[in-house]
Amino acid sequence: MCSPEVAKVVRERVQKEGLSNLTRRNFLRLGGAAAASTAFASFVGSAALVKAQEASGEIVDLSHVFGSSIPTYLVNEKPHREDFVTVENDGFYIQRWNFTEHAGTHVDIPAHFISGGETVDNYPADLLVGPAVVIDISAKAAENADAALDVADIEAWESANGKIPTGAVVFLYSGWDVRWDDPEAFRNADANGVQHYPGFSPDAAAFLVEQRDIRGIGVDTLSLDIGASTTFDVHVTVLAAGKYGIEGVANLAAIKDRQATVFVGVPRWENGSGGPARVLAVI
Amino acid sequence: MCSPEVAKVVRERVQKEGLSNLTRRNFLRLGGAAAASTAFASFVGSAALVKAQEASGEIVDLSHVFGSSIPTYLVNEKPHREDFVTVENDGFYIQRWNFTEHAGTHVDIPAHFISGGETVDNYPADLLVGPAVVIDISAKAAENADAALDVADIEAWESANGKIPTGAVVFLYSGWDVRWDDPEAFRNADANGVQHYPGFSPDAAAFLVEQRDIRGIGVDTLSLDIGASTTFDVHVTVLAAGKYGIEGVANLAAIKDRQATVFVGVPRWENGSGGPARVLAVI
Repeated sequence: MCSPEVAKVVRERVQKEGLSNLTRRNFLRLGGAAAASTAFASFVGSAALVKAQEASGEIVDLSHVFGSSIPTYLVNEKPHREDFVTVENDGFYIQRWNFTEHAGTHVDIPAHFISGGETVDNYPADLLVGPAVVIDISAKAAENADAALDVADIEAWESANGKIPTGAVVFLYSGWDVRWDDPEAFRNADANGVQHYPGFSPDAAAFLVEQRDIRGIGVDTLSLDIGASTTFDVHVTVLAAGKYGIEGVANLAAIKDRQATVFVGVPRWENGSGGPARVLAVI
Repeated sequence: MCSPEVAKVVRERVQKEGLSNLTRRNFLRLGGAAAASTAFASFVGSAALVKAQEASGEIVDLSHVFGSSIPTYLVNEKPHREDFVTVENDGFYIQRWNFTEHAGTHVDIPAHFISGGETVDNYPADLLVGPAVVIDISAKAAENADAALDVADIEAWESANGKIPTGAVVFLYSGWDVRWDDPEAFRNADANGVQHYPGFSPDAAAFLVEQRDIRGIGVDTLSLDIGASTTFDVHVTVLAAGKYGIEGVANLAAIKDRQATVFVGVPRWENGSGGPARVLAVI
């Protein structure tokens, strides 16, 4: 785990050096799009580690299908799949996959932004299970695609539900996942290629990391930061603190008003910066 | 879900047609190896859906690292990874992966053997969580690499622990996972390229599918069937019944004498025949 000082240094370095290069190399292959959005206004909900005597045992799948036509942050990085053998020709069926790690419902782990940070193969398994907290900003997201989950939203959630529990995974629910099947609407890039969708604010990320004891954060969009971010402050703050992020989360509407425990089923990708995952919630 | 009749027809067809082709095409690229093994003799253990008042909340990782030097059933099908971008050059780090679906700790889903069978993207999420049952055949596996978990082993487990609970995932513990870091010892192929390691017997698979209400089965070896099988009866029986298998499971020793709930975190690989997964147990 890195100190806030380390996080600050990394953040400054990344802002000065790395991301300007990155922006030139990878971030400008964008298509333009616009779309309608859906609002969900309820603001109830609380979360605690599931207890059998209270739990329904119902499983909610927080994962999208990982496929070749999904929306991706890097517009040209669609996963690729092909038949390797088939039942008809070979007696059984196996596909071959080729993809970069940050597509679909997937995890960001410290090494994604932090040189020397922990990779997903060695990240502690017991941090992959925890109480889910879902903070609903869908009302303001429906008004403004650049809306951010801010400290005030966290405070409002805590006023209604109590303090964020120890070990929580804190999800931003913007209602964005209804766009998933329309990748251009999901990326929502403008004429200059800048993406527009909600994310955490840098202040909210710092608050969660410094003032609360969380395991990670998650979003139903393509990035922990708002889509228009060029500095990735939320990524740096969360990952430098040794926490993780989950992007492209599905079905948060189904758990946002209920107690749930989340299981972050990310395979142990060797040296992985994160990667595709199955995220399940138990109600 | 298929009837036993369907399973029988599929099994006969696969035996007659598919696997002879498959054997010629893919199964003869084998290396020879032999190795020592480790025995574990305890035969205690019971499993039930975890209850909070009894649960420790301890997480046990049942997953190996998914990497480029792991043992694989198809000897030439090692996963491949390479840097796509790095923090040093690009501001952040992402790997590119290329692999076929049945490597590492991974799931077999009906479509793997059953034409028209369910693929992993649409397989019901609520079947991915259930009580773990671990049946220990490590004593006989230490004597005989071709040892199979038979109906008598299930009956002995039930005599000690009660009937296998509804919705269980039934694991075969052979002690084989201590060989994981030595891929040749793990595949344990003879001079003719035939692999030798434990698996379920066809009768045990039929018993579990027909006489008990299970979700799936799992092994700490490379195949649900014994390594020397050429007919894959266990695969066909389990998958034709709409159940799943998990291969390359790790750390079963840590849960075999304890109550545990297993979470099968397999990403929703589009049209997937199964695929790499994170398998976690909650004690």
